[in-house]
Amino acid sequence: MCAEYLGAKPDHAARRGALRSLLVENGLDALLVTDLVNIRYLTGFTGSNAVLLVHAWDMREAEDRTIIGTDGRYGAQVAEQVPDLQAEIARATAPRVLDLAGEWQLGRVGFESHVVTVAQHVAFEAQRTGLQLTPISGLVEQLRMVKDDYEVAQLRAACAAADAGLATLLERGSLRPGRTEREVARELEWAMFGHGAEAISFETIVATGPNSAIPHHRPTDAVLAAGDFVKLDFGAVVGGYHSDMTRTLVLGAPAEWQREIYELVATAQRAGTAALAPGVATSAVDAASRDVIEQAGYGAQFVHGLGHGVGLQIHEAPGVAKTSTGTLLAGVAVTVEPGVYLPGRGGVRIEDTLVVRETDPELLTRTSKDLTVVE
Amino acid sequence: MCAEYLGAKPDHAARRGALRSLLVENGLDALLVTDLVNIRYLTGFTGSNAVLLVHAWDMREAEDRTIIGTDGRYGAQVAEQVPDLQAEIARATAPRVLDLAGEWQLGRVGFESHVVTVAQHVAFEAQRTGLQLTPISGLVEQLRMVKDDYEVAQLRAACAAADAGLATLLERGSLRPGRTEREVARELEWAMFGHGAEAISFETIVATGPNSAIPHHRPTDAVLAAGDFVKLDFGAVVGGYHSDMTRTLVLGAPAEWQREIYELVATAQRAGTAALAPGVATSAVDAASRDVIEQAGYGAQFVHGLGHGVGLQIHEAPGVAKTSTGTLLAGVAVTVEPGVYLPGRGGVRIEDTLVVRETDPELLTRTSKDLTVVE
Repeated sequence: MCAEYLGAKPDHAARRGALRSLLVENGLDALLVTDLVNIRYLTGFTGSNAVLLVHAWDMREAEDRTIIGTDGRYGAQVAEQVPDLQAEIARATAPRVLDLAGEWQLGRVGFESHVVTVAQHVAFEAQRTGLQLTPISGLVEQLRMVKDDYEVAQLRAACAAADAGLATLLERGSLRPGRTEREVARELEWAMFGHGAEAISFETIVATGPNSAIPHHRPTDAVLAAGDFVKLDFGAVVGGYHSDMTRTLVLGAPAEWQREIYELVATAQRAGTAALAPGVATSAVDAASRDVIEQAGYGAQFVHGLGHGVGLQIHEAPGVAKTSTGTLLAGVAVTVEPGVYLPGRGGVRIEDTLVVRETDPELLTRTSKDLTVVE
Repeated sequence: MCAEYLGAKPDHAARRGALRSLLVENGLDALLVTDLVNIRYLTGFTGSNAVLLVHAWDMREAEDRTIIGTDGRYGAQVAEQVPDLQAEIARATAPRVLDLAGEWQLGRVGFESHVVTVAQHVAFEAQRTGLQLTPISGLVEQLRMVKDDYEVAQLRAACAAADAGLATLLERGSLRPGRTEREVARELEWAMFGHGAEAISFETIVATGPNSAIPHHRPTDAVLAAGDFVKLDFGAVVGGYHSDMTRTLVLGAPAEWQREIYELVATAQRAGTAALAPGVATSAVDAASRDVIEQAGYGAQFVHGLGHGVGLQIHEAPGVAKTSTGTLLAGVAVTVEPGVYLPGRGGVRIEDTLVVRETDPELLTRTSKDLTVVE
């Protein structure tokens, strides 16, 4: 897949600029970013060890004093991936960056309290020289909720790789009685790699027959049998962005109870999708879908939230559940995935990845949601 | 691979018993375990949300009051995987378990200060009812360093899957000029799945030519060329246990400089391996290998530590580096992986996974370390 198709390069400097506005709003002079996904979002760096100090002052000076720290393994990589920022290479990365912040007398330096452990915090406090370390939570995650054009292009490509992977599986007749869950999972993953996935989003779920009633089932050597529900929950990663899709198929003619719960979940899924719009509370989206299932008497069999944000992580803000807070904005990418699980018999989940738009939401996972009967 | 071959079932109750001794040593009445890998080690539970409260008192009562908490998605799974412990199913898992600890007036309850975030800690403190929450670090990780027979059997199988995967790649002639790093990586992973891997240990590294000088290179569309070093760093997961191996090959007749640094790294790798024995400081193992490279004048080109523990995680205790503390024990599984990297030209790393024994260490990754020339 060519780079052009996937949109222009990400504008990391613009993202850091947006973060600076949040820092000023929160009375911070700088933010020490230690979450590696947040660092990737703000700089493009993909190594496994880094610390980023984002300076809040006016843009010109702030970029001069925004530093990424990493260790010797990543010296060449950080120079290539983050040419626009000063890099500090040190064995003890965080102490070195905190030292610099101290020399610059930065004042109130926020740290990511939802990421930094109690033990790291103790070490930071022992290290800081004149800084006022201030806990703050979710600032970068708040920015990451709203996807820019580059990010949506990656998500589209990731979802397309997953759609194409499942299509290949069905064309090949790989979903048939006699095969094991594990075989189907491996083959689906391989097909996604063939269609441009750089990685899989999470451990692929293939759950057949009674196993389909287990919401998060790991593939086993269980054999697909005629009459089974087969639930497939899977995704591809492209450019670091994750797709997430669930489809539930039937091997052969569906029984009446299978048709019934499939139609129920499909209706609930449409109701949840229809509720996606800027300004709508995430809890109201959950309710729109859940009400359908509760009114049919299956509320107790829908044991999880309706969905979640998706992007550089498979699960990210916002949550879309009964107890979620906050409202949607245009550009937020979420899943909508109601399910009904009948222990010992079988279950259905139908899940799409979508982007909230001013008009109708944009559907990224485009595989049909009609009840697919595999003969 | 049949279960018998992989050894008996893990004895989770024995592991919890060993942990209780550490709790008593540390003056704790209980430990709140929130690290999911530690929870898997202590119970067998593999879901993505759990909290475990391990009670320190005498065995019988302690097991009655050792609770695993998770949410509704994992109700069936926790019952199946952890039949021997009381399970609490709750939406807010940690608060529910802390409530119980409060009702039982547990007193000094340790929490994993290297895992719990500052924000979680604030929430715990708001929740605790008469408990004295006490930071403690690395207790379960200390136990996990020494592998029991079951664990070594899994590690052997994981390393065998990786060995077999590389052998398949070489037999098929898949490593040849004209192929891309990415193609080779995908094919190697696929071959490991074919040999029993349930997952790959980490993002496979295939680095050809000048890219081999980048210690942690991600596979690109770079094309393998005659005369290149090709560095492959990869692993398979079996039963949750990770193998880790690096081999560096040459495509065609090696140049003099390639022979020279290959032999140097191989000699350093043997020296590090020879140093592995119970009672030896991990820093001394690093030194045994590093000295060889430093004496040859390439000390500055060996930019990382010598190795790390390996098990349920690809990187776990103990570290084996210049600044590491602690000494080896029989049963500890580590990697030995010196490297020399010449920017712009190429690099060599040779890595094995081994288990420390009273006699010679047990070599788990058995692929030849002679300089392999692929014609």
